[in-house]
Amino acid sequence: MKTEIIAVGTELLLGQIANTNAQFLSAELASAGFHVYHHTTVGDNPDRLLEVMKQASSRSECIIITGGLGPTKDDLTKETAAACIGRKLVYDHRSLDDILNHYKITGKEMSENNKKQALILEGSLVLPNDFGMAPGMVTEAENKTWMLLPGPPSELKPMFRQYGLPALLQKGGKEPVRSRVLRFFGIGESMLEAKLADLIENQTNPTIAPLAGDFEVTLRLSASFYSTEEAERALDETEQRILERAGEFFYGYDDSTLEEQLLKSLQQTATSLSAAESLTGGWFGKSVTDVPGASKSFMGSVVVYNNNMKEKLLGVKAETIQKHGAVSAECAAEMAEAVRQKTGSGFGISFTGAAGPDGDGHAKPGTVYIAISSPQQTDVLPLQLAGSRNRIRALAVKHGLFALHKRIVAEK
Amino acid sequence: MKTEIIAVGTELLLGQIANTNAQFLSAELASAGFHVYHHTTVGDNPDRLLEVMKQASSRSECIIITGGLGPTKDDLTKETAAACIGRKLVYDHRSLDDILNHYKITGKEMSENNKKQALILEGSLVLPNDFGMAPGMVTEAENKTWMLLPGPPSELKPMFRQYGLPALLQKGGKEPVRSRVLRFFGIGESMLEAKLADLIENQTNPTIAPLAGDFEVTLRLSASFYSTEEAERALDETEQRILERAGEFFYGYDDSTLEEQLLKSLQQTATSLSAAESLTGGWFGKSVTDVPGASKSFMGSVVVYNNNMKEKLLGVKAETIQKHGAVSAECAAEMAEAVRQKTGSGFGISFTGAAGPDGDGHAKPGTVYIAISSPQQTDVLPLQLAGSRNRIRALAVKHGLFALHKRIVAEK
Repeated sequence: MKTEIIAVGTELLLGQIANTNAQFLSAELASAGFHVYHHTTVGDNPDRLLEVMKQASSRSECIIITGGLGPTKDDLTKETAAACIGRKLVYDHRSLDDILNHYKITGKEMSENNKKQALILEGSLVLPNDFGMAPGMVTEAENKTWMLLPGPPSELKPMFRQYGLPALLQKGGKEPVRSRVLRFFGIGESMLEAKLADLIENQTNPTIAPLAGDFEVTLRLSASFYSTEEAERALDETEQRILERAGEFFYGYDDSTLEEQLLKSLQQTATSLSAAESLTGGWFGKSVTDVPGASKSFMGSVVVYNNNMKEKLLGVKAETIQKHGAVSAECAAEMAEAVRQKTGSGFGISFTGAAGPDGDGHAKPGTVYIAISSPQQTDVLPLQLAGSRNRIRALAVKHGLFALHKRIVAEK
Repeated sequence: MKTEIIAVGTELLLGQIANTNAQFLSAELASAGFHVYHHTTVGDNPDRLLEVMKQASSRSECIIITGGLGPTKDDLTKETAAACIGRKLVYDHRSLDDILNHYKITGKEMSENNKKQALILEGSLVLPNDFGMAPGMVTEAENKTWMLLPGPPSELKPMFRQYGLPALLQKGGKEPVRSRVLRFFGIGESMLEAKLADLIENQTNPTIAPLAGDFEVTLRLSASFYSTEEAERALDETEQRILERAGEFFYGYDDSTLEEQLLKSLQQTATSLSAAESLTGGWFGKSVTDVPGASKSFMGSVVVYNNNMKEKLLGVKAETIQKHGAVSAECAAEMAEAVRQKTGSGFGISFTGAAGPDGDGHAKPGTVYIAISSPQQTDVLPLQLAGSRNRIRALAVKHGLFALHKRIVAEK
């Protein structure tokens, strides 16, 4: 399907934000087999927006519009789309209830224009907004597919993955496409592609599409068969061939996250976890507790952001820090052991390192030690990471999640 | 000048990179008084590129094209622009010398197609590339200005600032625009807009443009004057009128963050901080330590993710939890006081609440208590938040950062 993406918002034309929605949607669409030929950005101006919409419908089969679904007078996407395809706007009662409910719960005052967010193009399928108030929608007009999505990436991304893409896939080919995403950590996209080059090139059903994400790589396998059994069998076979070559980097399916996999392996082994964080400042605990129900396995974290706190809150020996520095395998090991014993957890994990921009005297930025301690043993994973302060911190958290998950599965 | 930006590159349509060039150029152009009305992205396809160029010249006075100036067969921007405006391509001898010289110096082998980078539209002004090989160019055709810039941001940005924008300004003859961004927390976009409706609608110099971000709202004030002093005076006056109405929600300027403002106020008062986190699981510590140099003021955090840990690691009284629940003002107050005293910090902050999706028995999702403790007093901020688990957690962190910043400023 020839697809194009229109972003609406004067803030984009003023350069206040980058159009990361177009990037996200393009990557998702590409890996699902859609051809994106144009991105357009236009401001909150109904005449120019209408012109851009008309042009899009003259050259594309699927038009995805982002932004302009909010409550303010500037938000004109629905009104303009309605004019473009000759459709009325009507209230979606479920969305309206959600909005009224939100204000009831929070006790905040609702300005009347908030109701406008519940208006949808008549006859369209509503895409629920699990992270905000303005719903998205998808509809057909003169053989074209129109999809409207909210501008904030935190709302658009989950909406598109959960509801938008499945709606498009249903319209797409003749044979239903079943897809399965395999998730990898610790290997780059080009390295994974090289390992699988012959499979990726020669295989057409299922197709294999790599996609680089946030420090992870995913492979989307898409199989087209009328029979579900046949599709699943083909996906299983392809998955097996891939895991034979790259299984050590594999950690989960579809939308699962490293955090979820870790909590699953903790729950399956009835083990508990605590963390001692220096470098990551609480990020590991934050990531684990992103997952509902984390409190069943995650006890807590002691964030020790200077040497004094490492001694005071965790009892790391002063001589360890003096002799090896706070950024050392020795300090990491003591931290992990201390937090495990202090909290009475089955596993303790620790993070120490230099995130930069400045080193810590002993260690240059990017030097990271992660220790994992269980009653059996304490292992230290030394890493040399590159990039910005927050890239180093984010990557350290991911490495910790992945290594701990693999370790728990191995000790099981 | 009506301006538009065309980005050329299939990698953009595949979502491999975001179009940050369009953002950069738009911000630069806006602050120089140019009106950017469209961004378009198109792949390395000469037919679609030609069509997009023709359309641009039908509606804009200045067309800036990024990407496609390199040596490979995919790089077709110059050839297509030449066809669009009916111009020949000729060698720029200075650029050609630079390219030959580069290969001579580095001792690398030059493939013949590298010379292609020295081709320019006949009669155009060359924009030298100080960080790469492909020069940019600017030319006039039928009263339109065409500018071609290289795709890599590390080449495009310095080229545009050093040579591109000055070339455009010479043609424009406009009053330069100075802008200032005011940042607000704790008030929605529509409510802030309602408070300032008359100012926003009636005022044209400076203009006031609201923008909703991640739980924050910003106002961009843009003033057009030849004199810098006059512009600054007008911005000051407008800022004052805005802060008279909404000053309680204001926290900083331009790109500053709540975390930076908090650390600044801690450093200015030579105070230190620690945190006790339940609900937020380490997120508060993570946010504060996103900022380089946080270790000067931030001691650490104790993440207590179940009731047992609250007693064990912080010494919260069992009877407090029994009587009031862990999600209570009383528990929050004890946590903040305990972590302050345990770490010897000037301020202790605590977060307890129910993030959902399930409540904690006593409290329904969205119930949040934040306590701030100093030697003077301990205050509890009760909140009722709505939305997803992570929205509630993220918002709680922001509320904590903002309340603490205001409290420190007030105690100063």
